[in-house]
Amino acid sequence: MLDIASKIEEGAITFLKAEYLYLSIFVIVLAIFIFFFVEPVFGTFYTTLAFLVGGFTSILCGYIGMRVAVHTNVRVTKLCTTDIASGFVIAFRGGEVLGFILVGIAILVFIILIEASMAVYAPKTLADYTAFFDLMAGYGLGGSFVALFGRVGGGIYTKAADVGSDLAGKVVEGLPEDSPKNPGVVADNVGDNVGDIAGMGADLFGSLAESTTAALVVGGYSAELIGGGASMYFPLLITSSGIIVSFLTQFVATNMMKATYENVESVLKWQLIISTVLMTAAIIPICLYVLPESFTYGNLNTTVTTNWDAFGCICVGLWAGLIIGWITEVYTSNTYSPVRELTDSCRLGAAPNIILGLALGYMSTVVPIVCIAVTIYLSFHWAYMYGIALAALGMLSTLPIALSIDGYGPIADNAGGIAEMTGLDPSVRRNTDKLDAAGNTTAAIGKGFAIGSACLVALALFGAFVAKTGQTTVNILAPLQFAGLILGAMIPYAFSALTMSAVGDAAQDMIKEIQRQFSDPEIKAGTKDPDYETCIAISTKASLKKMAAPGLLIILTPIVIGLLFGPNAVAGLLAGEIASGVQIAFSFSNTGGAWDNCKKYIEAGNDDTEGQAFAKHTPAHQAAVVGDTVGDPLKDTSGPSINIVMKLSSILSLVFGNFFRDYHLLSS
Amino acid sequence: MLDIASKIEEGAITFLKAEYLYLSIFVIVLAIFIFFFVEPVFGTFYTTLAFLVGGFTSILCGYIGMRVAVHTNVRVTKLCTTDIASGFVIAFRGGEVLGFILVGIAILVFIILIEASMAVYAPKTLADYTAFFDLMAGYGLGGSFVALFGRVGGGIYTKAADVGSDLAGKVVEGLPEDSPKNPGVVADNVGDNVGDIAGMGADLFGSLAESTTAALVVGGYSAELIGGGASMYFPLLITSSGIIVSFLTQFVATNMMKATYENVESVLKWQLIISTVLMTAAIIPICLYVLPESFTYGNLNTTVTTNWDAFGCICVGLWAGLIIGWITEVYTSNTYSPVRELTDSCRLGAAPNIILGLALGYMSTVVPIVCIAVTIYLSFHWAYMYGIALAALGMLSTLPIALSIDGYGPIADNAGGIAEMTGLDPSVRRNTDKLDAAGNTTAAIGKGFAIGSACLVALALFGAFVAKTGQTTVNILAPLQFAGLILGAMIPYAFSALTMSAVGDAAQDMIKEIQRQFSDPEIKAGTKDPDYETCIAISTKASLKKMAAPGLLIILTPIVIGLLFGPNAVAGLLAGEIASGVQIAFSFSNTGGAWDNCKKYIEAGNDDTEGQAFAKHTPAHQAAVVGDTVGDPLKDTSGPSINIVMKLSSILSLVFGNFFRDYHLLSS
Repeated sequence: MLDIASKIEEGAITFLKAEYLYLSIFVIVLAIFIFFFVEPVFGTFYTTLAFLVGGFTSILCGYIGMRVAVHTNVRVTKLCTTDIASGFVIAFRGGEVLGFILVGIAILVFIILIEASMAVYAPKTLADYTAFFDLMAGYGLGGSFVALFGRVGGGIYTKAADVGSDLAGKVVEGLPEDSPKNPGVVADNVGDNVGDIAGMGADLFGSLAESTTAALVVGGYSAELIGGGASMYFPLLITSSGIIVSFLTQFVATNMMKATYENVESVLKWQLIISTVLMTAAIIPICLYVLPESFTYGNLNTTVTTNWDAFGCICVGLWAGLIIGWITEVYTSNTYSPVRELTDSCRLGAAPNIILGLALGYMSTVVPIVCIAVTIYLSFHWAYMYGIALAALGMLSTLPIALSIDGYGPIADNAGGIAEMTGLDPSVRRNTDKLDAAGNTTAAIGKGFAIGSACLVALALFGAFVAKTGQTTVNILAPLQFAGLILGAMIPYAFSALTMSAVGDAAQDMIKEIQRQFSDPEIKAGTKDPDYETCIAISTKASLKKMAAPGLLIILTPIVIGLLFGPNAVAGLLAGEIASGVQIAFSFSNTGGAWDNCKKYIEAGNDDTEGQAFAKHTPAHQAAVVGDTVGDPLKDTSGPSINIVMKLSSILSLVFGNFFRDYHLLSS
Repeated sequence: MLDIASKIEEGAITFLKAEYLYLSIFVIVLAIFIFFFVEPVFGTFYTTLAFLVGGFTSILCGYIGMRVAVHTNVRVTKLCTTDIASGFVIAFRGGEVLGFILVGIAILVFIILIEASMAVYAPKTLADYTAFFDLMAGYGLGGSFVALFGRVGGGIYTKAADVGSDLAGKVVEGLPEDSPKNPGVVADNVGDNVGDIAGMGADLFGSLAESTTAALVVGGYSAELIGGGASMYFPLLITSSGIIVSFLTQFVATNMMKATYENVESVLKWQLIISTVLMTAAIIPICLYVLPESFTYGNLNTTVTTNWDAFGCICVGLWAGLIIGWITEVYTSNTYSPVRELTDSCRLGAAPNIILGLALGYMSTVVPIVCIAVTIYLSFHWAYMYGIALAALGMLSTLPIALSIDGYGPIADNAGGIAEMTGLDPSVRRNTDKLDAAGNTTAAIGKGFAIGSACLVALALFGAFVAKTGQTTVNILAPLQFAGLILGAMIPYAFSALTMSAVGDAAQDMIKEIQRQFSDPEIKAGTKDPDYETCIAISTKASLKKMAAPGLLIILTPIVIGLLFGPNAVAGLLAGEIASGVQIAFSFSNTGGAWDNCKKYIEAGNDDTEGQAFAKHTPAHQAAVVGDTVGDPLKDTSGPSINIVMKLSSILSLVFGNFFRDYHLLSS
């Protein structure tokens, strides 16, 4: 067990080191670009500083998360040899370390950055504060910039390994999942840590940094918020109180509810409900005692917001998050009819499974989008763009718990992989599989949260961008804006195409390598250890090489359009990207989740809706495996990266806004 | 041959009669609704009249197209027993009857309607004319309303039959395509006529009626256009001159170029190029002698448009259409690398084929969207919303030729089906297959045209809607508009989900019926004729039942949102629908086309890029069949219907615009 665990650890560390080396270079290049092009517009250096701090903090968070995960996985396997409850507690605590550290560091570093910069900048008037918080937007940009490459690179890594080893090992050779005979199996387990842990950590770090940024930038126009001392820090206080609420909540999970084989999933889900309820109560005193009774937004907008309006915005975001999570579960868990019907269709072959799976994902966008539309309408109505940022912060306020659950999943998955690879008793694998299955459902819920919050964050940043560039309205009935809108709506498609074909191509390389190794009869018979390292190297190389094109697409599009046509065209572009991106993100994530659970349901030998039992190695099972494999890049590479696409484009435009306004080449 | 042909004819007539009965009821219900809710706002009855005329003209066009197609198919089979050239000419002439009749009737009926109504309405001032052309928008609504149900109903019919008989007959029983032993085969051939001929005819009739409507409505604000006699009819003159140009072009195809086995595809493609070049020349005199030297848009907009600007708008639309068609070919034809690489991936299984096929479709949106964005920007810049309508009319000006080619495809497909079902010599099937393959590629090109023009039409109607409801700007930075935008972007997804699962569910019924029939050993052995009629009845019933939900979604969404929140929210909704719908339409259509050709390439026994030959009944072929089957509902049901979704929502909002403005329940 220690041997396998150290192989996974080494693989993860090697990949992240290589990735972070590339990333550090990218961060420094963009920092130089910002310093020479954006800062001269302001006449300062704070945006560059904030960008560097944000970028490297994000790297640090991803790295810590990965280290904790590879430290915990083998311990969970060990504990599952005795009982599932202690295995669950340790896996969950591993996730908690990620969740609490990430949110804690994000807040702490940001406060230090603000206080230190403010000491030098010394803002006095409202205009000073407005300008100052504008400069701090770099922090969010740094976080999201790293997150993009982390998510894309990690996503390509994990799915190239997963798809490749599934196709070559499971489908062709008939090996079980995580069989040690499969040369790609270690790469697959490494992938869980670098993609699902480090990548997702960076993603949500970015969301938190950016929604805080957006709230600070819009709040920076309000004399009442700036003048009242603590109220300036109101956005950070929401997150901070979320840490305390999450701490109380996790106590229930790990100390008061005992996980058994049956209730693992419900223990996790209760976490989300308890934290949402507690959080609703916790924000009342902060709204009442920290915020002024009412406030306005200077020359930005005439809306008057009361502290109860602000409470409403946070609440609507918080509860919309819970509803989105719940509906995600309905569409992806095999206890409800959508996945059950999808599973039935596998009896008729792979094609009906794919058709109905895609349809399921498209349909699953309806309720979340209605929730988001209502959230946008209400929070905008109550508190203008500040309200959107508050709604995003509300949705993210229970982040330590959400991240704990998200982190728990890959740890449990890895624990199962280690159990299988080391040939432990099937009862151990049964325990780890149960932990893993619970993690899969809650991971889908977590993705729902992440997408919903990303959409709100992107919108809040869009609002901040528009405010900053002095556009009072964004009229889509103008040529530049409408052309931008339709072009922006295309970006998530082009991005998905690039990431999906990256996974497809890398998986093909992986399959060829595994087939090459299987041509050695000793490896095929299992008497000789396969060469795991070559497979790890293939995934590493492919992901580092293939993350450049989608990354550059996202970064260069707003910059090129902004430089050519100015902020009006960029405003259209952003609106299009958000409106179309959020649909793709939800549908990809839910389609993939549904296919995954559909396959698991068949593998567990459950009955179809007409009462006939499914079995492994039947045509229905093969059809389900095709769906699961197609779903892998959708749910773990392209889908989650779209979150970052929306956010990054918006914050990039925010940071470069004045530059676009003053220096674009063509007039409208 | 006559026996089989009459079975197809009967099936098609039975279905269309049933469908048109339903449709007539729907048309009359909506007409009553318009008469009692919309007309009182105007105090007239012209919109209801125009709506009824448009609706029933569309039904007539679809019916004529179908009758011509079922008349021609068997004649093509007969001629292919002698040589391919005469088969080609007759198949193409069959398409021509559809193309020329449809465009001719659309224009003629519209002119009669306008002249007759004007005689009664007797407009005198510019305001009278403005109001009058507003009323005529009903014509476009009628056309698109029928088209929606025609496309959706026909699409479900054809693909339920196709997918069902492929899965049950080809995949499970190993029968060849169009085997007379397959009980679903006649339904499949009927489907080509009701879906691809009648459905597509109605779709493009709608596009033409609506782009003309949009141009007339916007032009109705211009004193110079209205005052100058013929210039009022300028939009109709573009289409009329397209008829003459198309007539000259088809002469080249049927008389000057002789189709051989090798050059069928290029004869068809030359049609598009020749007609585009001739059309460019033909519009110069019309622009110069019909339009005033410059004109403006009354109180709508201050843009001054010269006749050369108008020429520019038409040209940019016309040529953008050709580029979109060309790029569609690059992504869907197996002579270029995208499909060749996709074909290679089939060797690794169905999952890589699906992943890379979806990615191909997403990537294929890039160039068409850039073309559309440029078209929007330039034509808007030159001639405001009138320019967008002119660009749409430009793209549609070669419609008689485009429709001839589109109609040719299903006729050739049917001819092949009849050859196979009647057991003719394989050399005949070889001829018909070649005609069919050429039709498939050009059908994909035709779809590209249809999508591009639908997007422009929808945008032009959107502009007319905004003008009519008195919104001078559409500020998406307002709560209602942004919530509407994100909600609108969701609609095409929900719609696709409904249509795809309709096909999936209906195909399952079809599979069960075919399996039931195959349980009779005589039918399986081919000694007893299968019961084709039951399969036809399943497709008919499923499509009539399942077209209601997606249809109502599209019709009720703008009406409900408009009645609740007024025109601001509807403006956001439309922008979102167009921006996201056009991406889905392109990607679905191209993904499906690529998978289809990928399968055909393998079946023809061609080599992969490494020089190894493909063969039928190999795992690679099976993987390609899965892709083709998944692609069927994407490219022939959901994708093409999205065109109509964009257009119908916009024209519905245009017709109901004043009603929304005056009577919505909640204020913003």
